[in-house]
Amino acid sequence: MKKVVLGIDIGATSAKLGLVDSAGNILVESNIPTPVNTSGVSAADFVKSLCEAAFVLQHQVHAPVELAGVGVGAPNANYSKGTIEFAVNLPWQNEIVPFVELMQVYFPNLPIRITNDANAAAIGEMVYGGARGMKDFVLLTLGTGLGSGIVAGGELLYGCDGFAGEIGHIIMTPDGRRCGCGRQGCLETYVSATGLKQTAFEVMSHRYFTEKSLLKAVSFNEITPKYIADAALQGDSMALEVFERTGKMLGLALANTVAFSSPEAIFLYGGLTNSGNLLLNPTSKSMKENMLKNYYRRTCQGQLLPELNTQLLLSHLCNKNGAVLGAAALVWHKI
Amino acid sequence: MKKVVLGIDIGATSAKLGLVDSAGNILVESNIPTPVNTSGVSAADFVKSLCEAAFVLQHQVHAPVELAGVGVGAPNANYSKGTIEFAVNLPWQNEIVPFVELMQVYFPNLPIRITNDANAAAIGEMVYGGARGMKDFVLLTLGTGLGSGIVAGGELLYGCDGFAGEIGHIIMTPDGRRCGCGRQGCLETYVSATGLKQTAFEVMSHRYFTEKSLLKAVSFNEITPKYIADAALQGDSMALEVFERTGKMLGLALANTVAFSSPEAIFLYGGLTNSGNLLLNPTSKSMKENMLKNYYRRTCQGQLLPELNTQLLLSHLCNKNGAVLGAAALVWHKI
Repeated sequence: MKKVVLGIDIGATSAKLGLVDSAGNILVESNIPTPVNTSGVSAADFVKSLCEAAFVLQHQVHAPVELAGVGVGAPNANYSKGTIEFAVNLPWQNEIVPFVELMQVYFPNLPIRITNDANAAAIGEMVYGGARGMKDFVLLTLGTGLGSGIVAGGELLYGCDGFAGEIGHIIMTPDGRRCGCGRQGCLETYVSATGLKQTAFEVMSHRYFTEKSLLKAVSFNEITPKYIADAALQGDSMALEVFERTGKMLGLALANTVAFSSPEAIFLYGGLTNSGNLLLNPTSKSMKENMLKNYYRRTCQGQLLPELNTQLLLSHLCNKNGAVLGAAALVWHKI
Repeated sequence: MKKVVLGIDIGATSAKLGLVDSAGNILVESNIPTPVNTSGVSAADFVKSLCEAAFVLQHQVHAPVELAGVGVGAPNANYSKGTIEFAVNLPWQNEIVPFVELMQVYFPNLPIRITNDANAAAIGEMVYGGARGMKDFVLLTLGTGLGSGIVAGGELLYGCDGFAGEIGHIIMTPDGRRCGCGRQGCLETYVSATGLKQTAFEVMSHRYFTEKSLLKAVSFNEITPKYIADAALQGDSMALEVFERTGKMLGLALANTVAFSSPEAIFLYGGLTNSGNLLLNPTSKSMKENMLKNYYRRTCQGQLLPELNTQLLLSHLCNKNGAVLGAAALVWHKI
């Protein structure tokens, strides 16, 4: 019988499920709504719904399959403890939910692993994507916020408490922008969908008030990364500056990341990567400008070359269901 | 026969050698001068002198011993390649020296490992010091510069090129102080013996010119971290501000480090730690102020406690020959 792993990606609005084979094919998939914060749905009831949806899925596969394990990606998930802890976008924001324990009732004797969505995406990249064969790489998820998964020596960094890899909350500018975490100046307040919007308004607040820009036609509530990107592609100078500023900040953060773990590659994943070279070019430029010489390639005679040891790449799973693949890879990686 | 490892610490002025047993006792030790930059001594000749000094050392032990390997800590050493590359404080600053290969001639069939001094100190802390039993920790060496060794999941981070762990060259302030690496605003320009001196002059340049301070009696060439610390201990307000500023910057860098690898502890090692609580107190305060909530301890009910998951500690090897122990530990760690 073909072995499959159940991959689950729990987002703020829906939970996606898929049965994934060892080659990274999603044989069948479905989704159920994630209960809203005010719903009062208990974690146990949600796990029950999830597992029922998974049982239905198992019956939708044409050929008989053997379930080899369950991998879950979820916000604020703790790999070491198998818990989801104080997740602000889920109805259990004041609880430590023993998620693995709750699922184990429905899947006794199967390995069940949980980690945060960015870590799952990094494992997905390693097992199925562009990081195959790499021992040291970093993946950043650029969405509403900025998540990260760090792989060093072939293993994901979890740290002493399961919470390693919060590059989005590295403070870039003390006294900078207010962050949802309660502090100021975190990377994700500049480099994320929301950060990009704020930078658009920062640019409008700085430039001559007579300058024309497509950005000036929309409200803060209406503006989107896509709108800014479309404006930039039409040559809108302010929109281009938004990407310049974002890339400058991201490039600095990436140079600092390299001084930490010197990865072979840094992968960008998530919605913001749709802006392509608009973001990649200024990021790559700033990353090089801010990079310590040690991390530049050299000739055998010691002459510096213009390339870095660390490649900046787009995730190979950007247009696939990377989150479900990553969740499944969490188990496949250990089989 | 008792097994020992030859530990060698190559500094800018001298190279220290010691035979170290598995318990971390240095049975015998000696040192030879490191040739100065302008000496024209070849790397091969220096290695010959080192190995001859080691042979002499082996004959000075009273009981017969069996040499189990050689560990070397050196600036700009590359663990993966066994080389010392473009080390600005050694006479081979424009060369890639195949150090392990050169030594292997004198010690055929023995394992020989080389890494930079900060990495060696981190391994020493893990094998013989306060990090025994820890899987995730970071060690910073606060000397003339700032070096670092990062251990994650029980292994030292080397990265794709052997150069991981350059926390001293994380850019804290774009357009900040000029660094020896050619860039600006690196952590080590603020947090190191030289950084402390510069901060003393920064403080004098900012405060009312009428204020009295012991710092005002000495030149830039004459001032030392010890002088500033002694002044601070006498209540000198400007000297105290020097440590406040240094600790504030270091604490921010440590909070960012935790967001990266979430270590169980961060150890401080090296000359600057002689200032004790003068540096530790403001560092600890700033580290807490800048720390993401995830990394605070909590009660089972989720209430935040005032302690962090990561302890800030002084190295247990500060008053021992930590560099030689660390170099030897590089081999003991793998036996």
